[in-house]
Amino acid sequence: MSASSHEHEEGLAFQPKFDASGLVTVVATDAANGDVLMVAHMNDEALRKTVATGEAWYFSRSRNALWRKGETSGQTQRVLEIRTDCDQDAIWLRVEQIGAACHTGRRSCFYRAVTEDKGSPRLSFVDAERLFDPNKVYRK
Amino acid sequence: MSASSHEHEEGLAFQPKFDASGLVTVVATDAANGDVLMVAHMNDEALRKTVATGEAWYFSRSRNALWRKGETSGQTQRVLEIRTDCDQDAIWLRVEQIGAACHTGRRSCFYRAVTEDKGSPRLSFVDAERLFDPNKVYRK
Repeated sequence: MSASSHEHEEGLAFQPKFDASGLVTVVATDAANGDVLMVAHMNDEALRKTVATGEAWYFSRSRNALWRKGETSGQTQRVLEIRTDCDQDAIWLRVEQIGAACHTGRRSCFYRAVTEDKGSPRLSFVDAERLFDPNKVYRK
Repeated sequence: MSASSHEHEEGLAFQPKFDASGLVTVVATDAANGDVLMVAHMNDEALRKTVATGEAWYFSRSRNALWRKGETSGQTQRVLEIRTDCDQDAIWLRVEQIGAACHTGRRSCFYRAVTEDKGSPRLSFVDAERLFDPNKVYRK
């Protein structure tokens, strides 16, 4: 193992490894039950704001913009704990989610299970009830 | 919302969106307590094998190879549930982890918390005890 890899894995300096687009992958889980709420990305600024404010900030790849979670929908995330992984290219947030994390109005973005049906993968809805109507929340 | 986006979000056809490298992001959580064990990637073959066998297969970007979790270390993952997210570019596995998920010998790859120390982010170890000695398990 290289010195740099050892430092990343065993050191206490926070040196996130951003990808070619300047982003790290972020997983937000519900502190109440461990459910994965969403997988998203942060750039350096989003990460710093999240650490400093205790509220989740992300970077939207589709909108190419910094974004405070819930700034439009009101469905904010209070961050209880931030962790990084062995090679510091992923972040885990344990959050208190207000309402729904998903833009479709569901609590979690992961509202469909993958199962096998006659040898082919197939989806089925699980925990898929909507907590809000996205057409009302995200008005054009 | 485009027809294609609506189909991805509300349909029951499993149409994972692989990135330019042919990969999707995968989060594995511990079915026992909801802890995030690891964030990794799957290509189409890894995903199919995981669905078909109920054991976690990944694609290693560093080794550029398909990889059955635990094939070297014996620390396998039995998959209890597979979910996909709204835009089908991420996968959540709820797993029964045998031993440690992390190649450093820890149960989870996320064994360090990020906190603020005098305005700067800093790491501290949490749940960082080793369940195996990586120097013994991964012999060169």
